[in-house]
Amino acid sequence: QEMYRIAVLPGDGIGVEIVPEAVKALKAIAEKFGHEFVFTEALVGGAAYDAVGHPLPDETLELCQNSDAVLLGAIGGPKWDDLPVHLRPEVGALLPLRKELGLFANLRPCMLFPGLIHASTLKEEVIEGVDILVVRELTGGLYFGEKTREKTADGGQKATDVLSYSTYEIERVVRFAYEAARKRRKKLCSVDKANVLESSRLWRETVTELAKEYPDVETVHMYVDNCAMQLIRNPKQFDVIVTENMFGDILTDEASMLTGSIGMLPSASIGGEVGLYEPAHGSAPDIAGQKKANPLATILSAAMMLRYSFHLEEEARTIENAVRQVLIEGYRTPDLMEPGKILVNTVEMGDKVAEKI
Amino acid sequence: QEMYRIAVLPGDGIGVEIVPEAVKALKAIAEKFGHEFVFTEALVGGAAYDAVGHPLPDETLELCQNSDAVLLGAIGGPKWDDLPVHLRPEVGALLPLRKELGLFANLRPCMLFPGLIHASTLKEEVIEGVDILVVRELTGGLYFGEKTREKTADGGQKATDVLSYSTYEIERVVRFAYEAARKRRKKLCSVDKANVLESSRLWRETVTELAKEYPDVETVHMYVDNCAMQLIRNPKQFDVIVTENMFGDILTDEASMLTGSIGMLPSASIGGEVGLYEPAHGSAPDIAGQKKANPLATILSAAMMLRYSFHLEEEARTIENAVRQVLIEGYRTPDLMEPGKILVNTVEMGDKVAEKI
Ligand SMILES: CC(C)[C@H](C(=O)O)[C@@H](O)C(=O)O
Ligand SMILES: CC(C)[C@H](C(=O)O)[C@@H](O)C(=O)O
Repeated sequence: QEMYRIAVLPGDGIGVEIVPEAVKALKAIAEKFGHEFVFTEALVGGAAYDAVGHPLPDETLELCQNSDAVLLGAIGGPKWDDLPVHLRPEVGALLPLRKELGLFANLRPCMLFPGLIHASTLKEEVIEGVDILVVRELTGGLYFGEKTREKTADGGQKATDVLSYSTYEIERVVRFAYEAARKRRKKLCSVDKANVLESSRLWRETVTELAKEYPDVETVHMYVDNCAMQLIRNPKQFDVIVTENMFGDILTDEASMLTGSIGMLPSASIGGEVGLYEPAHGSAPDIAGQKKANPLATILSAAMMLRYSFHLEEEARTIENAVRQVLIEGYRTPDLMEPGKILVNTVEMGDKVAEKI
Repeated sequence: QEMYRIAVLPGDGIGVEIVPEAVKALKAIAEKFGHEFVFTEALVGGAAYDAVGHPLPDETLELCQNSDAVLLGAIGGPKWDDLPVHLRPEVGALLPLRKELGLFANLRPCMLFPGLIHASTLKEEVIEGVDILVVRELTGGLYFGEKTREKTADGGQKATDVLSYSTYEIERVVRFAYEAARKRRKKLCSVDKANVLESSRLWRETVTELAKEYPDVETVHMYVDNCAMQLIRNPKQFDVIVTENMFGDILTDEASMLTGSIGMLPSASIGGEVGLYEPAHGSAPDIAGQKKANPLATILSAAMMLRYSFHLEEEARTIENAVRQVLIEGYRTPDLMEPGKILVNTVEMGDKVAEKI
């Protein structure tokens, strides 16, 4: 296949500034390797709500379903925080997008970049060499369970969420994590709360069964509270971490702090026919429109797209090396600026990476 | 009241070594201030299972109910990990103890101790002056919701846990947190996942209502994923954090790593007539029986007992100052030993604190 259709969803806030820089990198790749990438832009999030009254318009969902991959910027902002829940950008667009596209696995690599070790609040010796891949289940659990609200006899209310997992849902994401571990350092840490939750007990049983198929991978089970501790105490012990949706939400954000540069961290959501790629950070309304945003997380998300959706490993590495090279040469957006480095804006950073490619 | 009945539950592992040192400190307080503390010991956890076949024997529960406070060591160990869930020490004893005693609020202070700033994996400038109190709801949510397991059509299984909160349950723990914040730096951070969970939306609405009664306290709402990040990025922004059971489980363990010395951190579980006090760390089977355990977290838990159950503030401070003094003089158990300090064992450390009192 030489032609790939990419749905481009800039979204809100800095999304509209960083996504074009990732498109720029992809165009440089297309030129260098002789691929054809066809980009089609669509509205999502607050921008879509403002334009057509819903954060995930039907045309946008259809475009995504008919593409080979989706590149997303960021979604949400204070402007839309008071809308009814189902119309709020994050929940009204992100959750249905994940569900409709069948994106059951969210991948968040967490690694250090050259020259950025000082950015972390953790000590250098603790994080030097950290390289963790968190695989988060993304279409099950509390996020998608039934929700109810009722009145209580004392005049108050009672609100309920349901946390369910099936063997099937657990197996497919854990299998994915095992395959990823096989290509890395062959260690899998499965995180649950099996001492308290029934869903976690099924999770642990299922992992224990699957472990037999992957005797070459070392399997460790860890309680989620302990994992939240160990990520700070000794993050180098981890290679691949796999966990359910809500635990993954918390642990990926915690893990992103190890590197101190959330502006650098990409993510991939995969599982169905169309993968979705977006930076780990949010829409940063406070710096939107000022060309201050760091586009590297989005550019690295585009690299993940090449790897996971298009199986273009060399092309993916070319982007990643270009980013590394630009950092080594000292270019920094304001979020990572230090004395002795060269300050660039969003567009300049994108240009530098495209040049290197 | 001059006579206080204290149920003493050493439990498993290092529990039997550290609890006597806390009792020693309490006896020194009794002598100095002219109180009468009556200590009654009972079995709990694996030790109770081995002796009578259940981790929480009726006599133990009754003793707790008829005491003024409970001092607990630690519970559990690999020896009992393969028992059926309801007989496992942690779950078979801890959860019913919390429920039966009505301990709806778990308090975990997280602060730095003199001379221990190096113990953290975080940089000094990030944690210097950190002083956080996490208030965790302890008798609701996923821990106590209905649990089910069923077969699915594809030959697999489906497991379900239910997460419910009522206005009443939220109000009482949040009110407690507000009162605590009033006595501290007057900042409350309420943590939820209101963008996704119905129970979190009720949580946030309830906090928003209560906030009106505490105009002197600054109220902030934070999503749990963001909080897991902010605890590492900038922990000094927090004064009191209040959150539901499962989020609290994860965040308290994460926060305990800020100080790098989990062997120092006490906890109090309160709400009913009888409070329960225990160190934040576990039973550490690997070092049990070797006099290596650090008794200071348990001793500081005894100080919390004096403060929260007996309202003996001066006595509580006397213990806390004694601990600080012993650290300043350079005494260290093996977990915190550094060159230039004086190594002591569990009993010697307990003696030093009692002397200072
Ligand atoms: C916006 C929110 C619903 C979302 C989530 O919790 O999944 C976000 O935190 C994330 O991790 O992508
Ligand atoms: C042992 C376990 C059930 C317990 C909990 O999760 O509450 C422990 O982690 C704690 O925090 O006291």
